[in-house]
Amino acid sequence: MEKYKILVTGFEPFGGYKQNPSQIIAEHLPEKIEKEMPNVELQTAILPVAYKKAKDKLLTLLDSYKPDIVLSMGLWAGISYVTMERVAVNIMDARIPDNDGYQPIDEPIYTEGPNAYFSTLPIKSIVKRLKESGIPASVSNTAGTFLCNYVMYIALHSRATKGYPRRSGYMHVPLLPEQTASVKSEFGIPPSMSLENMIRAAIITLKVTVEKFYVGDEKILL
Amino acid sequence: MEKYKILVTGFEPFGGYKQNPSQIIAEHLPEKIEKEMPNVELQTAILPVAYKKAKDKLLTLLDSYKPDIVLSMGLWAGISYVTMERVAVNIMDARIPDNDGYQPIDEPIYTEGPNAYFSTLPIKSIVKRLKESGIPASVSNTAGTFLCNYVMYIALHSRATKGYPRRSGYMHVPLLPEQTASVKSEFGIPPSMSLENMIRAAIITLKVTVEKFYVGDEKILL
Amino acid sequence: MEKYKILVTGFEPFGGYKQNPSQIIAEHLPEKIEKEMPNVELQTAILPVAYKKAKDKLLTLLDSYKPDIVLSMGLWAGISYVTMERVAVNIMDARIPDNDGYQPIDEPIYTEGPNAYFSTLPIKSIVKRLKESGIPASVSNTAGTFLCNYVMYIALHSRATKGYPRRSGYMHVPLLPEQTASVKSEFGIPPSMSLENMIRAAIITLKVTVEKFYVGDEKILL
Amino acid sequence: MEKYKILVTGFEPFGGYKQNPSQIIAEHLPEKIEKEMPNVELQTAILPVAYKKAKDKLLTLLDSYKPDIVLSMGLWAGISYVTMERVAVNIMDARIPDNDGYQPIDEPIYTEGPNAYFSTLPIKSIVKRLKESGIPASVSNTAGTFLCNYVMYIALHSRATKGYPRRSGYMHVPLLPEQTASVKSEFGIPPSMSLENMIRAAIITLKVTVEKFYVGDEKILL
Repeated sequence: MEKYKILVTGFEPFGGYKQNPSQIIAEHLPEKIEKEMPNVELQTAILPVAYKKAKDKLLTLLDSYKPDIVLSMGLWAGISYVTMERVAVNIMDARIPDNDGYQPIDEPIYTEGPNAYFSTLPIKSIVKRLKESGIPASVSNTAGTFLCNYVMYIALHSRATKGYPRRSGYMHVPLLPEQTASVKSEFGIPPSMSLENMIRAAIITLKVTVEKFYVGDEKILL
Repeated sequence: MEKYKILVTGFEPFGGYKQNPSQIIAEHLPEKIEKEMPNVELQTAILPVAYKKAKDKLLTLLDSYKPDIVLSMGLWAGISYVTMERVAVNIMDARIPDNDGYQPIDEPIYTEGPNAYFSTLPIKSIVKRLKESGIPASVSNTAGTFLCNYVMYIALHSRATKGYPRRSGYMHVPLLPEQTASVKSEFGIPPSMSLENMIRAAIITLKVTVEKFYVGDEKILL
Repeated sequence: MEKYKILVTGFEPFGGYKQNPSQIIAEHLPEKIEKEMPNVELQTAILPVAYKKAKDKLLTLLDSYKPDIVLSMGLWAGISYVTMERVAVNIMDARIPDNDGYQPIDEPIYTEGPNAYFSTLPIKSIVKRLKESGIPASVSNTAGTFLCNYVMYIALHSRATKGYPRRSGYMHVPLLPEQTASVKSEFGIPPSMSLENMIRAAIITLKVTVEKFYVGDEKILL
Repeated sequence: MEKYKILVTGFEPFGGYKQNPSQIIAEHLPEKIEKEMPNVELQTAILPVAYKKAKDKLLTLLDSYKPDIVLSMGLWAGISYVTMERVAVNIMDARIPDNDGYQPIDEPIYTEGPNAYFSTLPIKSIVKRLKESGIPASVSNTAGTFLCNYVMYIALHSRATKGYPRRSGYMHVPLLPEQTASVKSEFGIPPSMSLENMIRAAIITLKVTVEKFYVGDEKILL
């Protein structure tokens, strides 16, 4: 039996944060996945928070590795739970410049691309399993218009135009406790989640995705 | 050398929550403290969320054990960090009935007591150490008017009228992740904190309190 | 010179709220618009919070009135500002049953429709003008998956398939102060906005849309 | 019949905000109160956000005017409702320097003062009436440790030591909509309240206080 090929991506730090929890999760996954999911083959990658470089790196990975499943992850400062994103939209609209100083305003990701792609991960089943496992989680209907939405769209566009990856989607994660511990804000301390729970969330997401892999596309959101 | 006598209290569940993280922390502490603070003697107690029973149980403990240090803990659903409470006020004003159905409105805890007591734990040093340890924490200026404020006031009133405990204060803790994972709310998922970080917060609080024990009372908040 | 034909829709109450501010705004608009925008012709309608009835009513209005501009509005309990929605997605996924007891889960609005439509209102210019006018406002990247997203999608689908309305979009509004004044919540009192500011927000939205009407479609979001 | 003498205070702007809604309310009150409460005599004052100057100005006003009732007001950025403060504590602990650059840390307001004073306004009746009038309101158990708590304590200390004012308390107000409209924050737009509702809140507070003036002190919080 052939092994499922999985690609998991995180992002480098950006926007004044010295750490990006999505990077740390991605770095911890290979050891965990080897133990818990021996039937899969995992590659991980840390993407730059820069539109052009992130696209090049992601497309190169997709074209060379041709993964069955892609889980991309990124930081959403201010949420108290992980999200499974439902939809990626064909737009770049950056509140702050990326790490290379590029700040597109209301530009399409692919001029000829559709307005949006829906996640092809079983996001409802994943969120259900996460909650049952004690991890606060929610389906989210927007991945924003910065790099998170961008890499989600690019992987789904690859699927639509090239056929791989078969299943692809995005998980947003909160700040780590050690990041919020040093926030000085007039409006209080933002929520956080332990690294341990974030790593568990990524593993559960991959497990449910593999379990549901053959269910077919008709009810992909369930 | 004599050992410091420490009393740590948590609360039973209340208000629709099946678990109270303060109880779970208190149950985990004896084993941890034995290893990490061999120079102290620890008692823990779980107080009922009932005004009359909680007072009886706490006073009996204080009068028999005569602890040097009391750290009381309770749940504050909705915060994203632990708090070190600065002040306890002489009032009972319950938004919901206690677990025995008693719901005092604007009544004093002790008719002849002062309007308020300040914590005698080194709350600023504790919060500083917690943050340095990666645990989101803040000084809080209100412990509410329910049982949390009540037991904080009672222990400080014992100190003022009987001389023990020398140092006494209160820590509020957030919900656990597994508690917020099952919340169904129109207004989103409340923040949470891992049990591991809550237990570390209690241990750090006790360590800093012991370190500062001889600093004297003049600058007790620092 | 021909007058622009504008349709503004609000919603009936739903989900336990006795009032829907979007309905009240719509009811106040005719008198205000007659004074402030004599160059336009306005129709307003209150849509039921029921998938099937709302679609029938909206399509009948669109097909008979053939408006140039549609501004639909709805309540988003919990926000502190008005939003101009950027995108409507082709999905119905209801957290609660609609007012007729219908609760679709992950169903498309139009089986053959695209995954999403972008608003054709000048949302960035509108938000800029709202803020300059002292009204808290933001572009939003999700209108949810309940009836708000639904009517936004239907109007934009009419535009794409039938050519009218030329400009169409959605504004979410917060609760009214008198609604939040009676909320009993463990987690506090949600934000609100005065009816006066909500009405001003709708008028400003229509004014900017009319001003920008001839700018062309290339930069419709600006 | 003698008229009740009322003093209402607001604060100057501070902390990066160009306006302080409490000042604007205070400036609007004389005209409103003359119409709506002809049986009272009103003085208003704007206090500097500076510990030493605010104390001098407030004590001079109290000693010369000897008001029956004092309502002090201040801004609490981030709340969505007005608060009636329950308690003032004998501490100055400033997160930021005051407008004169003075930043006391954990110092008492009066060395010989009690730890706390309770408001002598009928705060429960006021909050009830505010809510019935459609204004989001709540009793609050902390006025912080900056100038708001400070002037509340000073007026109540005057009452305790000199006998005037008979009734004294504090109302916190949110930001104005035009203030939050210009906030640029990673964590969203803070709540606000219209000036009209803030002014009504102050008038209702004074009306209920006058109505309850003869109830006696036993149940002053009701």
